[in-house]
Formats: sequence, structure tokens, C-alpha cells
Amino acid sequence: MITVLAGGIGAAKFLVGLTGVVSPGRITIIVNTGDDARFHGLHISPDTDTVMYWLAGVADLERGWGLAGDTFHCLEALARLGEETWFQLGDRDLATHLWRTQRLQQGATLSEVTEQLCRAYGVQCRLLPMSDMPAGTRLQTTAGSLAFQEYFIKLRQEPEVLEADFSEAVRAQPAPGVVEAILEAEAVIIAPSNPILSISPILAVPGIRGALQATAAPVAAISPIIAGRALKGPTDRILRSLGLGASAASVATLYRDFLNLFVLDVEDASLEDDVRKMGMEVLLAPTIMSTAEASRQLAQTVVEHLTLHSKPRA
Amino acid sequence: MITVLAGGIGAAKFLVGLTGVVSPGRITIIVNTGDDARFHGLHISPDTDTVMYWLAGVADLERGWGLAGDTFHCLEALARLGEETWFQLGDRDLATHLWRTQRLQQGATLSEVTEQLCRAYGVQCRLLPMSDMPAGTRLQTTAGSLAFQEYFIKLRQEPEVLEADFSEAVRAQPAPGVVEAILEAEAVIIAPSNPILSISPILAVPGIRGALQATAAPVAAISPIIAGRALKGPTDRILRSLGLGASAASVATLYRDFLNLFVLDVEDASLEDDVRKMGMEVLLAPTIMSTAEASRQLAQTVVEHLTLHSKPRA
Repeated sequence: MITVLAGGIGAAKFLVGLTGVVSPGRITIIVNTGDDARFHGLHISPDTDTVMYWLAGVADLERGWGLAGDTFHCLEALARLGEETWFQLGDRDLATHLWRTQRLQQGATLSEVTEQLCRAYGVQCRLLPMSDMPAGTRLQTTAGSLAFQEYFIKLRQEPEVLEADFSEAVRAQPAPGVVEAILEAEAVIIAPSNPILSISPILAVPGIRGALQATAAPVAAISPIIAGRALKGPTDRILRSLGLGASAASVATLYRDFLNLFVLDVEDASLEDDVRKMGMEVLLAPTIMSTAEASRQLAQTVVEHLTLHSKPRA
Repeated sequence: MITVLAGGIGAAKFLVGLTGVVSPGRITIIVNTGDDARFHGLHISPDTDTVMYWLAGVADLERGWGLAGDTFHCLEALARLGEETWFQLGDRDLATHLWRTQRLQQGATLSEVTEQLCRAYGVQCRLLPMSDMPAGTRLQTTAGSLAFQEYFIKLRQEPEVLEADFSEAVRAQPAPGVVEAILEAEAVIIAPSNPILSISPILAVPGIRGALQATAAPVAAISPIIAGRALKGPTDRILRSLGLGASAASVATLYRDFLNLFVLDVEDASLEDDVRKMGMEVLLAPTIMSTAEASRQLAQTVVEHLTLHSKPRA
């Protein structure tokens, strides 16, 4: 079993590649729910849905989020009713949120609903929310204290992030199976997601970081930073504004207490020694997933290295 | 002020006509909520929405319910998730239900939400749900005990109705302003709606029938039955299966304790004497609202008769 810690689009692309290398039934995905939110009375799990839609082959690949070919008629009507609609929700996408919200109201857990949705969408990987409990990320920014989606969508990541607040995740518990999926994995991979906004919330849930430190499986992370820049999103800016430095090495630093292998982009070969000195292996590979084949190649390179070369820790 | 008791499509057509005769600001509408239901976790008020959409000029005039030009992408996606989707909900229509449901969850009353929705849709008539409390109609039928929409939509009104159960309406209270709207009206009109499924639930809410008996205003009803048949829907069949006889006179009988004026279709001139013997005036008029102008003509005929000829009761 391979267990992957995942945020949204970057993780989704990598996971599609991974399913071309490893049978989907052998993949467990622990997804960030720190950016879950309520809009129009509905429970939205953006990272879960992004990963699910990509794996189901129904994602809008251009936009990254939502369903391919979706329409926005309901959202337009909500706007005419005076609702704030900066968080875009497609008509077909809404079915997912209606379905999830109704089942949560009926007493199902987020894990159970996620499993049922994945089955309905034909996703064969096992998708686990990091927690069944509320674990929303808040951000202290130059525009004040913001809920994640206010920062990310409404204000388009324009404010500087001064502090990421995972206090709700810290009070949550891992969803059933999450800790076991790390402890019992053959290998664990941290997807090339934003280490602060997507991976840190997962690590903040009690027991998860400890499981990554304790597991006998090799733990790898793929850098979401190439040559000091994020391919997409504000990762580099956030790392800088938090005083961490916007280098792939900064990402490795954040994971150094549990990482065996760090996958650096070939452009970052100059960082290899610095990262190795943190006590982990380094793998240089092309990490830009501009095509499905590039994603598959990256996944194959990482999996082969993990299964052939990485030694379980003592 | 003119107060109208209303069901769905028949009432909506009449009300559009009425707004061509009486300033909308002078019209109060008491709407049946006996067929309100929950689908996909949303609170749906079908009669309220039908009346609101027709008055807003955005209704689908062919279908009668829902919004003109709406799409059904969300519903199709819900069907793919395995949901029952026999109750059709358009994408733009969904915005109304999301909006209503969210506000009800936040503690607003159905009256408040209805008023806000009407304002958002630019409806100038005052729309009052018959009650802010649950008041769902159940039907004992040859297919067993059914919630209203199961009978009406899912089973397409095919079972015979053996008994209409308004026990929830009987335990409800009229929404704020409902009783006053009847007592203080210049005239009250019962729209040409199904007397059993649409008007009886309103009359079952404690205080409303009494207000109709007590008001000094003349009370008129327009027959939804012409020559023993309903133009649309199962009104005639239900009247028969309840042993009431499918004649316009049967409808007058149901309202005889509070009615001053019964509007019979010109085709039913032969019933004039029978109805008059019940102690009410009779007005013969063309009641088929096949065009907007026919609706306006009918409204004008009724309003003129009420204001010129009908005498307030002692």
C-alpha cells in the first residue's frame, strides 16, 4: 500500500500519474480538509473534490477545480438573489455538495460520505479526509484574520500571510484509518502541494506527524518549489512572508523530522547537498507535470526509487 | 386590499391577471404550504415558488412550474450519484431553495424568507405562507399513505385518494398577518385551485376558516371545475373518489360556510340555481385562462363584481 498526503490540484495531477504506475486499489490518500468551508449552507471539501474529480477523470483539467463542461446557472441565480458568489460552484458540482451536506446532516461522518462519493464517482483509490472533525485553517494576514477561502479565493491570495493558524486542526482527531494508513504503508509520499496551506494542516492533526516519524515505511516528499518559485499558487510568497525562504530546501526543512527522501526538480540540482545534509536522500527528477505522461513518469521515478533504493528506517 | 387564497399554477395564472387590474401593492396572497417538502436536504415550497415566479414574470409558462429556460444539470448529476430525482429541480430554481433553506437554518421564519425572496425577485404583491410551521398534507390512497409529493409527482396522481390528511396543518398556526389579511381585506378571493389539495390545507390551519366566516369583506371563489372536469390536474377525480361529486357545485359546497360569491364558468350555467340555493351569489364568466388577457379579463370581472355588486355581510 502506498499512502499519499494530498492537497488540491498539484496532488491530484501527481495521483493521476501514480494510478498509472500502482494499482488504484493499493493507494490510500489522506486529504487536507483545512480549506473545507460552508457556502450557501453546503459543506464544501475543495481538496477532496479536486482529487476525486481528477481520479474519476471528470475534472476540468484547464481550470484545475470543478467538473469538466460544468455550467454555473445556479450560482448566477444566487448572485441575482444577492448572495456572495466569489466561491465558484458549478451546477453539476453542486450535486456533490448537496449530497455530502445532506448525509452529514443525517449523521454520517465525512469519511463515510467521502467513501460513498468516491464509489459513486468510480474512484478506486481509498480517499480519507485528514479528520472527520472541523479543522479549518485560518490565516493571519496583512488584511487581517481570514478564513482560508477568504484569503485564497475572495482576496486572490493578495494579502501577505503572517501566520497560518491550525488551532482547529490541532484540536481535531485523525479520521479512522489515517494513522494506520501511514504506519502500515509500504511507502508514504507527500504530494507536491503547498507545504504551509495544504500539508501543514494535515500534519497539525494530532497523531499524524507522529505516525510519519514512527512508520517503518520510507517517507518521500516531492518539492512543489522549482528554482525558488511555485508553478501555481502562492507557495513561494507564503514561504517568504513566513520567513522560511522560498527555496525547495525550505520545504525539505519543514519535513526533515520524518522525511527519508526529497524529490528535487532537476533545475534545483544545486540544492542537493544542502538537502542531503538534513539527513535525507535526494532524488533529482523532472517534477513539472505539464502532461499526464509527465505525471506518470514522475510517479514512476518516485515509486521505483522508494521500492528499489530506499531502506526502511531503523 | 384584496386577499387571495392560492395554490399553484391555477392561482398563479389568476394572480398575474389580477395584477393587471389591481395594483400589486394592494394584493395579499395566502399560499398553501401543505405540499412543501424536503428534497436533497433543501426546503422546497412549490406553490409559493410557482406563484412567485409567475408574478415575477420568470416562470416557465408551458410547464407551469419552475423558471423559464432553466437547465437540469445538477439534478442529472444527483441522479448519477444514485439520488431519486422524480421531483424535478432546475439549476436556477435550486438557488431559491438553497437560499430559503440556509435562512431557515439560520433561524428566519418561512414568512420572512418568503418576503425576502419576493423582494429579490421583484414581486410587489405580499406573499404569505399559510403557516410558518410544518403543515404537510398526507394522502390516504389506494397505494397507501403518501406524502403529498409522492402522490402528486412520483406516482403522477394515479392512485385514488381515499382521504386527505391535514392533521399537521390542524396543529399549525397561521403565519403572522394571515388572519388580519382576511379580516381587514376589502375582498377575499379563493383562486381556482384544487379545493382539496390546495385550498383545504389553508382552511385547516386554525383560525383561517373562522376569519373567512368572520370577515366583513365579501368572499368569492372561482370554480376550478368546468363542466365536471378540471382543466389540469386531478381535482375532478379526487372530488369523485372522496364521494363529493366532480361538479363545480361540489366546490361551492366545500366553501358554503363562508362564501358570498361563486364564479361559475359560462359552460356551467345550468348549475347556477343549485349554487344560489346554498345562499351565495353566482357570477357566470369565462374562467378558462388560456391567455394572459383571459386571466386579466376574469380577474377584472370578479373584482368589478365584488366592488360594485357584492354587499358586505352583516
